[in-house]
Amino acid sequence: MAGNSFGTLFKITTWGESHGKGIGATIDGCPSGLAISEEEIQQELNRRKPGQSKLTTERKETDRVHIMSGVFDGKTTGTAISLVIFTEDADSSKYESMKDIYRPSHADFTYDQKYGFRDYRGSGRASGRETAARVAAGAIAKKLLAGIGAQIYAYVIQIGDIQTRRVDFEAIEQNSVRCADPDCAPEMESLILKLKAVGDSVGGKAEVTALNVPTGLGDPVFDKLDADLAKAMLSIGAVKAIEFGAGFDVCHMQGSQYNDQFIRQNDHLVTKTNHAGGILGGISNGMPIVFRVAVKPTPSIMIAQQTVDRNGQPRLFQLPAGSRHDPCILPRIIPVLEAMTALVLADKWLIQKTVKSS
Amino acid sequence: MAGNSFGTLFKITTWGESHGKGIGATIDGCPSGLAISEEEIQQELNRRKPGQSKLTTERKETDRVHIMSGVFDGKTTGTAISLVIFTEDADSSKYESMKDIYRPSHADFTYDQKYGFRDYRGSGRASGRETAARVAAGAIAKKLLAGIGAQIYAYVIQIGDIQTRRVDFEAIEQNSVRCADPDCAPEMESLILKLKAVGDSVGGKAEVTALNVPTGLGDPVFDKLDADLAKAMLSIGAVKAIEFGAGFDVCHMQGSQYNDQFIRQNDHLVTKTNHAGGILGGISNGMPIVFRVAVKPTPSIMIAQQTVDRNGQPRLFQLPAGSRHDPCILPRIIPVLEAMTALVLADKWLIQKTVKSS
Amino acid sequence: MAGNSFGTLFKITTWGESHGKGIGATIDGCPSGLAISEEEIQQELNRRKPGQSKLTTERKETDRVHIMSGVFDGKTTGTAISLVIFTEDADSSKYESMKDIYRPSHADFTYDQKYGFRDYRGSGRASGRETAARVAAGAIAKKLLAGIGAQIYAYVIQIGDIQTRRVDFEAIEQNSVRCADPDCAPEMESLILKLKAVGDSVGGKAEVTALNVPTGLGDPVFDKLDADLAKAMLSIGAVKAIEFGAGFDVCHMQGSQYNDQFIRQNDHLVTKTNHAGGILGGISNGMPIVFRVAVKPTPSIMIAQQTVDRNGQPRLFQLPAGSRHDPCILPRIIPVLEAMTALVLADKWLIQKTVKSS
Amino acid sequence: MAGNSFGTLFKITTWGESHGKGIGATIDGCPSGLAISEEEIQQELNRRKPGQSKLTTERKETDRVHIMSGVFDGKTTGTAISLVIFTEDADSSKYESMKDIYRPSHADFTYDQKYGFRDYRGSGRASGRETAARVAAGAIAKKLLAGIGAQIYAYVIQIGDIQTRRVDFEAIEQNSVRCADPDCAPEMESLILKLKAVGDSVGGKAEVTALNVPTGLGDPVFDKLDADLAKAMLSIGAVKAIEFGAGFDVCHMQGSQYNDQFIRQNDHLVTKTNHAGGILGGISNGMPIVFRVAVKPTPSIMIAQQTVDRNGQPRLFQLPAGSRHDPCILPRIIPVLEAMTALVLADKWLIQKTVKSS
Repeated sequence: MAGNSFGTLFKITTWGESHGKGIGATIDGCPSGLAISEEEIQQELNRRKPGQSKLTTERKETDRVHIMSGVFDGKTTGTAISLVIFTEDADSSKYESMKDIYRPSHADFTYDQKYGFRDYRGSGRASGRETAARVAAGAIAKKLLAGIGAQIYAYVIQIGDIQTRRVDFEAIEQNSVRCADPDCAPEMESLILKLKAVGDSVGGKAEVTALNVPTGLGDPVFDKLDADLAKAMLSIGAVKAIEFGAGFDVCHMQGSQYNDQFIRQNDHLVTKTNHAGGILGGISNGMPIVFRVAVKPTPSIMIAQQTVDRNGQPRLFQLPAGSRHDPCILPRIIPVLEAMTALVLADKWLIQKTVKSS
Repeated sequence: MAGNSFGTLFKITTWGESHGKGIGATIDGCPSGLAISEEEIQQELNRRKPGQSKLTTERKETDRVHIMSGVFDGKTTGTAISLVIFTEDADSSKYESMKDIYRPSHADFTYDQKYGFRDYRGSGRASGRETAARVAAGAIAKKLLAGIGAQIYAYVIQIGDIQTRRVDFEAIEQNSVRCADPDCAPEMESLILKLKAVGDSVGGKAEVTALNVPTGLGDPVFDKLDADLAKAMLSIGAVKAIEFGAGFDVCHMQGSQYNDQFIRQNDHLVTKTNHAGGILGGISNGMPIVFRVAVKPTPSIMIAQQTVDRNGQPRLFQLPAGSRHDPCILPRIIPVLEAMTALVLADKWLIQKTVKSS
Repeated sequence: MAGNSFGTLFKITTWGESHGKGIGATIDGCPSGLAISEEEIQQELNRRKPGQSKLTTERKETDRVHIMSGVFDGKTTGTAISLVIFTEDADSSKYESMKDIYRPSHADFTYDQKYGFRDYRGSGRASGRETAARVAAGAIAKKLLAGIGAQIYAYVIQIGDIQTRRVDFEAIEQNSVRCADPDCAPEMESLILKLKAVGDSVGGKAEVTALNVPTGLGDPVFDKLDADLAKAMLSIGAVKAIEFGAGFDVCHMQGSQYNDQFIRQNDHLVTKTNHAGGILGGISNGMPIVFRVAVKPTPSIMIAQQTVDRNGQPRLFQLPAGSRHDPCILPRIIPVLEAMTALVLADKWLIQKTVKSS
Repeated sequence: MAGNSFGTLFKITTWGESHGKGIGATIDGCPSGLAISEEEIQQELNRRKPGQSKLTTERKETDRVHIMSGVFDGKTTGTAISLVIFTEDADSSKYESMKDIYRPSHADFTYDQKYGFRDYRGSGRASGRETAARVAAGAIAKKLLAGIGAQIYAYVIQIGDIQTRRVDFEAIEQNSVRCADPDCAPEMESLILKLKAVGDSVGGKAEVTALNVPTGLGDPVFDKLDADLAKAMLSIGAVKAIEFGAGFDVCHMQGSQYNDQFIRQNDHLVTKTNHAGGILGGISNGMPIVFRVAVKPTPSIMIAQQTVDRNGQPRLFQLPAGSRHDPCILPRIIPVLEAMTALVLADKWLIQKTVKSS
């Protein structure tokens, strides 16, 4: 109950600090009989791991996943699935010097306030490294959803002031930014490298589209599909905002513009527009589920910053030379967005199996 | 588990359809010894009820709350608190004609898909009326938080294209829009009345500020304070987006701009800026908690709209003359935003009592 | 989270004090499309209500249930079902004199310790009256289970030293003790009346048999079917013990005696004996589920008892003359046992719908 | 939600099959600042591990625990604590021959019914080996409780027909049976060895006493302390029954005998008798918490047994010569009973911190 679990029927519990012995996720409630392999999970982890491209931190981590339980003869057994990624090389020495400093925009201060002290090595539990456990667990949720034809795409649509003009799902994995508009990707890449060179970082926006999601997923009143997706996204450290469908533009709209009209198309109902983002009354309506999230610039920058220490004394904080951090976390956060979306949808899909008495 | 409960330790379960016998909330986990009266709860309900001003629907509902259990001698006993609002007058006759139509932007279609059929009277459980139960329960959470000095303000900052330029908490309840900028309120009021006259509706934006929230509230990893607030807000039917602190503006920012610097002020730490919106690593940092939500235009409009019926046949849908609906839901959603914020904060505050072993 | 909810998918939350405005249950997660009426629920309540026979308290309560939400056109809608029983006549005056006394074997002292004070009228939330809400909710779970052919029988097998020699389901409702052995019933009845005459009370044992429960219900490791049934039963105030199948007799047995052998019978597997009580590894095996519970003598007796008051001062406690209490709660606890069994089984049955991926 | 989690605030999730890569527990909600070491946990595990004495299976397992996360500088950090025991040597070859057979009193059949197939190696998740994860997690709960002076003792009081006549806490760890009556221990030991020699097994009874438990723990209505302890105990595979205080003897008692009278003793209230077993209305009353559980004879015996296979065909099942199993599981189940008791009490103690508003 200290917040390390997510989901109702398809439920994950994650653990692990950045510089501890490892990180992991236990999945409770994955249906039996699903074919899954370490390789399939590894593929998703590889999309998140550091050192993939010159845009990301140069740390080399293999992030090798081990299925410790719950899978037998290549299939899930219905019992708890434990996934572990052992830490291979964590040099915590440089963190000694930071242990009393409250780094700006980091959770150092709030962890101390909450718990009385903190594991200061590599940000401990507050490190973005915890998202690897989400991606590993999400890979299994994705596999489950693939079985019903649902597909999830996350992609970058803005970095700094550069915004995409179109979405091409095929383009996403073809560029190192994971941008859906191949025309924008080089420009975004340049911007990120430019900021990396000066030791700064930059924020951006990502969009998620889920296709072929069955109608009926999501539970009114409080567990609406959009409510649970919002929680899932905002639980990712760098995400500061989310909007569904027309999003913040609804503020400017009138009902006569906003309302999506139903029409019949090939034997099923669709809406002419999708201002709702595929969700009505908290329940999927069969249209693409579409939402966007704002991702803040990485707090770790090479530029010296003014701050205070544990004792409230002013301190100048500067990362040690040679520190390796991401100038822009968006390319690596993409698989995390997909994983969290998959976890929500898999959970809602299982719940929906229990909703009708006949 | 069908989504009618919210919270972990301070947990509410709500029930009731728009045209049923009543609606209600049961609060499980409210600490004992809190002084609370029906009148205090009623005050909050009065801010939400229809018919308060010419801006809102003209339906007259008294929305009188009854404390059915859990309070003795004016104080909570620690046992389940049941709050009930009996329905006084619900004329469902006009809904007969709509029972097979899927109204645009309503949950008619998705409820049918999810459950096989639906209570079509007044939108049933999907009606905004369910939020009265949230407001009633939230009044108790607010009272609990008042005991530790925390204060929550929600207010309108945008209607259509009209945006506020300043925030004055004192102004909020002084105008019928519940706008924080008294200079904008008349203009917003005019716009809403203009749209009402033509049978249309309009969206807008509201902001929530929570002051004097203790540090340490919120639980990493998944139950971050912002994650749970996001879920709380997106669980309100009309809300389509949320942003914390700098929100979507972070997309344009660099780390050197975004990072909030810590400084010491009168023996406690504050940050020079509050781009984080009062939350770091999912935990409150003592700064004001600030977020904004986008509220869609009310789907019920008097203008005829094209849609389909249960059988997929095209139908023209028009509300019966004399139907009463809100041209803009924002003035009435304000107490709902406050209630949901209070529920999250009260819950997190209780959890925080258990976090340290000494 | 203060313990007023039970179940995972088929989840109930109950509220209400003995002498408050009413008691109720909200069911969250009941599948849509189940036909249910107030009359069906009332039938179960009538089996629990006081004043049914000369064996029970002479208080007259009609315990009339109202379905406040979640049912439309005679069928559950899938939304929260609220059941309320309004208090009709509660004379709390006689409790004034007891408000500072800690009645032996009552929860007066522990409620004061836990909450700081208590609603002393009629034992407040600690009254057995709360079980009416369980019975009402359980009636719906029973109806759901009836749809798959499962049947639940609870019945008395011991009162004081009188033990039944056989079980005849047909006999249960034919005698006022709800004893399964019609030969024993008169003797038990006499004993209860004899104790009533002297103002004392008596304990006993009940057995529950659930027939036609599908195989596969129950979730290892912690949510075993027997574990959840045990929790369900021990959550009933008067129950002090539970045993499944061979129960405490297993202490005397050897593996070669205890182990139930599998045999094939008409295309499905059964076991020659049923020492396991229908549950293997926490999962139903298709055999009758059988368990027994010990029910303590009603603590309220007319005989004067030594005790203390809030200030620790010795006090002689005697119920006012004319107080009405059950000399033996077993006849009235029978429907409660059935209700709690039904709630567990309905919940497990819903969960089982989500366990296999294909 | 597939039953691998236990607890509300102090919550554990366990994983692992008998012959998989390992087993483990993740603890979510342990307060920060608790001093704990691998050695302290190991001590509890050593009490459960096989091969401790000639009474237990001769399998040698070191069951070495690793703290993977959540502890820093020797203290819990408040984040998820992951405990892992890697499997050192698991020879699954002999299970190949059993994979289609349904062993009597094992969960083979029910797992197949529930999940469609099963990990047949060493009983997979249904193996008693999963209790090692409970003991590891329970060691931390015990440490937390030790901080408030609470002590938990579990001990054997019956094996077959041999029953203890007295309880001496000091004697428990002095004999290989973990019997509380040193006079009975040799006799019990002889009986177990005699049955081992003939390849049979035997059941028995254990008692748990928890001392110095604060008043006020336990949550009415459904989460009563006894209800949650009952669930905890019945979730242990071999446990078939539980009774609190006077237990099944209440069936024979009258209220005038049963009711525990309150008296004042050294400034606090106690009861002259403890028929209630330390719990009134589901809440601890400060008296020793006392309950007893029935433990069935180990199902694995060397004697040939009649059963069927997956196809329903009759089969004679006999364990391969040299198979190693416990003739009586009681000595090794003792630390499991203590662990589960500690988990319940730690959880209730944390919850109680949130119950009063002042």
